[in-house]
Amino acid sequence: MSVHEYTPAAEDLRFTFGGAAAPVARLRSGDVVSTVTEDCFGGAVRSVEDLPSRVCAPGRLNPVTGPFFVEDAEPGDTLAVHVLSMVPARPVAVSSTFPHFGALTSTAHTATLQPPLEERVWLYEIDAPAGLVRYRARRSPFMVDLPLAPMHGTIGVAPAGGEARSSITCDAHGGNMDTPEVRPGATVYLGVNVPGAMLGLGDGHARQGAGEVAGVAVEAAMHTVFAVEVIKGVATPWPRIESDTTVMSVGCARPLEDAFRISQHDLVTWTADLTGLDTLDAYQLVAQAGTALVGNVCDPNYTMLAALPKHLLPDATTVYGGVHQRLRAVPVPAPVVG
Amino acid sequence: MSVHEYTPAAEDLRFTFGGAAAPVARLRSGDVVSTVTEDCFGGAVRSVEDLPSRVCAPGRLNPVTGPFFVEDAEPGDTLAVHVLSMVPARPVAVSSTFPHFGALTSTAHTATLQPPLEERVWLYEIDAPAGLVRYRARRSPFMVDLPLAPMHGTIGVAPAGGEARSSITCDAHGGNMDTPEVRPGATVYLGVNVPGAMLGLGDGHARQGAGEVAGVAVEAAMHTVFAVEVIKGVATPWPRIESDTTVMSVGCARPLEDAFRISQHDLVTWTADLTGLDTLDAYQLVAQAGTALVGNVCDPNYTMLAALPKHLLPDATTVYGGVHQRLRAVPVPAPVVG
Amino acid sequence: MSVHEYTPAAEDLRFTFGGAAAPVARLRSGDVVSTVTEDCFGGAVRSVEDLPSRVCAPGRLNPVTGPFFVEDAEPGDTLAVHVLSMVPARPVAVSSTFPHFGALTSTAHTATLQPPLEERVWLYEIDAPAGLVRYRARRSPFMVDLPLAPMHGTIGVAPAGGEARSSITCDAHGGNMDTPEVRPGATVYLGVNVPGAMLGLGDGHARQGAGEVAGVAVEAAMHTVFAVEVIKGVATPWPRIESDTTVMSVGCARPLEDAFRISQHDLVTWTADLTGLDTLDAYQLVAQAGTALVGNVCDPNYTMLAALPKHLLPDATTVYGGVHQRLRAVPVPAPVVG
Amino acid sequence: MSVHEYTPAAEDLRFTFGGAAAPVARLRSGDVVSTVTEDCFGGAVRSVEDLPSRVCAPGRLNPVTGPFFVEDAEPGDTLAVHVLSMVPARPVAVSSTFPHFGALTSTAHTATLQPPLEERVWLYEIDAPAGLVRYRARRSPFMVDLPLAPMHGTIGVAPAGGEARSSITCDAHGGNMDTPEVRPGATVYLGVNVPGAMLGLGDGHARQGAGEVAGVAVEAAMHTVFAVEVIKGVATPWPRIESDTTVMSVGCARPLEDAFRISQHDLVTWTADLTGLDTLDAYQLVAQAGTALVGNVCDPNYTMLAALPKHLLPDATTVYGGVHQRLRAVPVPAPVVG
Repeated sequence: MSVHEYTPAAEDLRFTFGGAAAPVARLRSGDVVSTVTEDCFGGAVRSVEDLPSRVCAPGRLNPVTGPFFVEDAEPGDTLAVHVLSMVPARPVAVSSTFPHFGALTSTAHTATLQPPLEERVWLYEIDAPAGLVRYRARRSPFMVDLPLAPMHGTIGVAPAGGEARSSITCDAHGGNMDTPEVRPGATVYLGVNVPGAMLGLGDGHARQGAGEVAGVAVEAAMHTVFAVEVIKGVATPWPRIESDTTVMSVGCARPLEDAFRISQHDLVTWTADLTGLDTLDAYQLVAQAGTALVGNVCDPNYTMLAALPKHLLPDATTVYGGVHQRLRAVPVPAPVVG
Repeated sequence: MSVHEYTPAAEDLRFTFGGAAAPVARLRSGDVVSTVTEDCFGGAVRSVEDLPSRVCAPGRLNPVTGPFFVEDAEPGDTLAVHVLSMVPARPVAVSSTFPHFGALTSTAHTATLQPPLEERVWLYEIDAPAGLVRYRARRSPFMVDLPLAPMHGTIGVAPAGGEARSSITCDAHGGNMDTPEVRPGATVYLGVNVPGAMLGLGDGHARQGAGEVAGVAVEAAMHTVFAVEVIKGVATPWPRIESDTTVMSVGCARPLEDAFRISQHDLVTWTADLTGLDTLDAYQLVAQAGTALVGNVCDPNYTMLAALPKHLLPDATTVYGGVHQRLRAVPVPAPVVG
Repeated sequence: MSVHEYTPAAEDLRFTFGGAAAPVARLRSGDVVSTVTEDCFGGAVRSVEDLPSRVCAPGRLNPVTGPFFVEDAEPGDTLAVHVLSMVPARPVAVSSTFPHFGALTSTAHTATLQPPLEERVWLYEIDAPAGLVRYRARRSPFMVDLPLAPMHGTIGVAPAGGEARSSITCDAHGGNMDTPEVRPGATVYLGVNVPGAMLGLGDGHARQGAGEVAGVAVEAAMHTVFAVEVIKGVATPWPRIESDTTVMSVGCARPLEDAFRISQHDLVTWTADLTGLDTLDAYQLVAQAGTALVGNVCDPNYTMLAALPKHLLPDATTVYGGVHQRLRAVPVPAPVVG
Repeated sequence: MSVHEYTPAAEDLRFTFGGAAAPVARLRSGDVVSTVTEDCFGGAVRSVEDLPSRVCAPGRLNPVTGPFFVEDAEPGDTLAVHVLSMVPARPVAVSSTFPHFGALTSTAHTATLQPPLEERVWLYEIDAPAGLVRYRARRSPFMVDLPLAPMHGTIGVAPAGGEARSSITCDAHGGNMDTPEVRPGATVYLGVNVPGAMLGLGDGHARQGAGEVAGVAVEAAMHTVFAVEVIKGVATPWPRIESDTTVMSVGCARPLEDAFRISQHDLVTWTADLTGLDTLDAYQLVAQAGTALVGNVCDPNYTMLAALPKHLLPDATTVYGGVHQRLRAVPVPAPVVG
């Protein structure tokens, strides 16, 4: 096992999954990476006066660190990425409304003739030792502390079929899924589509509500440490996530019920595999014992997760050959100093 | 405060909210009702041989107990219904697939040329003292215990505009919302559209996964006790639910993102009312601190809930004038013996 | 054959399909009705100063003339309604934007935090002899003549299952389908759900673009003459329309693709019946030879139509036993003077 | 003006818009191209025994001829592509069902647990002189002739933001829009995102019903002749199409109402530009005088078109500076012999 340290310069950041970008590092199965990711605004929003639509260059939203080439990862394999730690890289995180982006506004796709909502920025002080971020209203003295809960909104590999996809969207290759489940302690499973998988990640959130309903979470640059492992010969059609307690299937689509259907369908067939149940028996078990989590309802594709408690499985240590347990035990190196 | 006991005969059950049915009881604000509800199959499915599409009469699915007339409830008021207790009325609950109904099948609306999935019934033994229901696979020996978590899938009032709506669907009047949040300890707020509100409820579930993805939960007849209170002069545009810890807004619509939008929009404006925040500040708070819960993704209208922890509010005891705290303190009478 | 003349007073207008309203006339199969319908604003918008949200009473939008009781129409039968003539009842028609209603605005269901578009009224002079209506811009001198093309946005029967549905929406019972295909010369087929069918119609449009994208068409009170016939023992699951050249199936639902699916599914199975093709062969024929028409994309349920040219059928005179040809030949009585 | 002849070999076909593929030819504004396109199966389906899922290599569906580099086309410009002629390249066209693809089946996104529909192939004889294609049922002797109406399902440029998109889907860059409006005599306007535009086209259909409801049209290799012109300094946000009589805006999205909204929104703002109307007056005109056309309801993004008759415009010859009229007058060279 090697530990790779990688701190991208601004010009090293990427805005697609797939495409011609050269890998920033070559990893072996079992390696650990200690790296830094920028926030979704590329760090350009520093005060409440910095309206994102003015200070961010078009096409430079949601930068991704990577791609990382993983040796021996071939199409048809699965890449497991275990998030070992995430530490906010700056003492302040940022959120905003953004013109015609978000769940409670018309958008470029849900197009109406109405003008956009006011663009407004909120700054959140991060109190990492206390595990809190502070919400401060902009138009009144109201303030309240919320739990610090770091996560990556964006993680993915190069798509299939020679596609390159914007880091703003998500699909079967992962990408901008915007689910709080990609947090320290979680293992993300991504189907490999090209040699080396070409892993990228970014869009750290100090925390996020379900649906990312305002279109922007509590955005934060991150020091992140993760480990990778290649699972040979096992295909993963849609991203999956495993925590200590839960297995989860991710669906990315519009309308939202299709994201729901994809995630539940994958969980049913996966549960059938893990339990030996026939499809309808697995459907019944998932229907009564499962749950559904809302990722984003603001990006070009929405994200839903279907989740099942692992204690319902006959032997949860067999999930992807026990990779989650192995990677969970990897010691966390000190984060890179960016 | 009076306690009303009411046990409907089969012919007393109703299949719409609204319409000409005479009230089964007249309640006063503050009264308690101890009653019985049938399961969604009207109790007709007793064994795994009883396929619902064969044993249930068309148009007799999802019966509702009621309507209850609430004195002094007038259009523009809100009816608070607090669920004091729910006890399964039979030792066995039932689930099934149902032809062309559910989230992972084509349906009458998501119409395809494919034949339906196999219709199959599952029986669940209820161990009320242990708080468990037992899932047993039909095609293999697999079995597992799941928590007993009683809830009402269906609760509502007469709709506005002279409408009468099938008990299968949900909308601004409530109805078949199919959310686990309508459980003992919760207060449901429903906008009153007609004099007396005309409250009905049914569709007890011993438990349910998010989305009711198979179209049918763990269906159980219930002994249910609830209390009502009329909140005069306060309108409630969409159903809301309050628990000891959380305020929730319900949206019912298709596609699923519209159910999400309705629920989040209502929670944002409600939060603005409860905190004094302006709309965008409330939007930001809900976006980062709120969550989203999936009710059903199988009924004619889907249900989503937007939820906010009450500890974030300056004074949560002011929600609807503190009715939740008052009704929470009502002593629970012994359930009626059906 | 009898000719019934019926002119409703304002208090005779109805706002639901289904419900307790007594029939306004009793018709026999083959009878003709000469009647009057109000516009969707109940005639309250007479000048560009009459903003609909101010001059229309809540709950009094989209009034319907009826219900007409049709003798011998029983559940499981089909009611054929042939539109013999439509003549605008006033020399001016009216359109408007309406707050949070329409396809290019957020709405009560596609809920956003944006304020509504400006409410604005347009008046259209009707030149009936020339067959034209005149569009005049409100903010510039631009004007242009458009073809007069009268149609009924709303036609339906009482729904199944004891429901009563607002005249604003549409579903399997018909209602506010808002398709230009309900025009003179067309026969509408509606499945009968209650004894007497309880037919109603209204919402005349002097013309309408596809999708009724602004939420309001060129609204006009109408003198309308129609004939009815009961087709015994033939069920019609969703509304169908027949013109001299085309058979059409209607789907009403959200999202729009479900309205599309319902309509195409019905046309495929209907085509299989009319041609003897097996289902997949009919699917193929409809896929290559059929078309799709957009009804409304603004009402609570959207409407799509699937259409097939009748000349592709082996014998188009067998459609519903040739009722279209029979009713097409009915002489048109002079319209009632309202 | 130069005439370029280009006949791709099988290995020259492309499966994405955007990406690293080198241009197959360099065109100047005003040039004409005479080329050949393969059908969506790459010509692999030759008999009813050739089930597409067996005879087509994965990832080799919907090949595109190109990319063509257009000199002087820069981001922010518009590329006009006028289709001069289309002649089927083989005497037989082909259609099929395809597993879990189409509007009346569950799919990978509208995921259900049902097995796919039977995969079945239909062959259509093309009678070019008579302008007919012959539908023959597979399970009965039924046959009928339908009009030959050649069109390209797929035409587009490289997307923005460094993306490369599968030729199966469509979006703001064009792609697999699957609308019959891309036919001889039509001019397609595409916003340029990369230097040279990188135009590609393919997926010829001998004809297609609205919605491409079976997922596959009457697929045919084509001899196609087209002309290009660069409109400098004029951006086009979504594809537009102009015929001799009509201007059309294209929207590609899910759900279908968003495709509708995009197309209508673009047509409203375009109409405002072309008429000088303010936005709401243009909204009103489009709402009453416009129409909506269904492209596809089966691909990863659905396509809708909004259309307005050109005779309603004050001066239709000003549309994009009159490029349609200029290109309409280009003499058609003899098609290339492939």
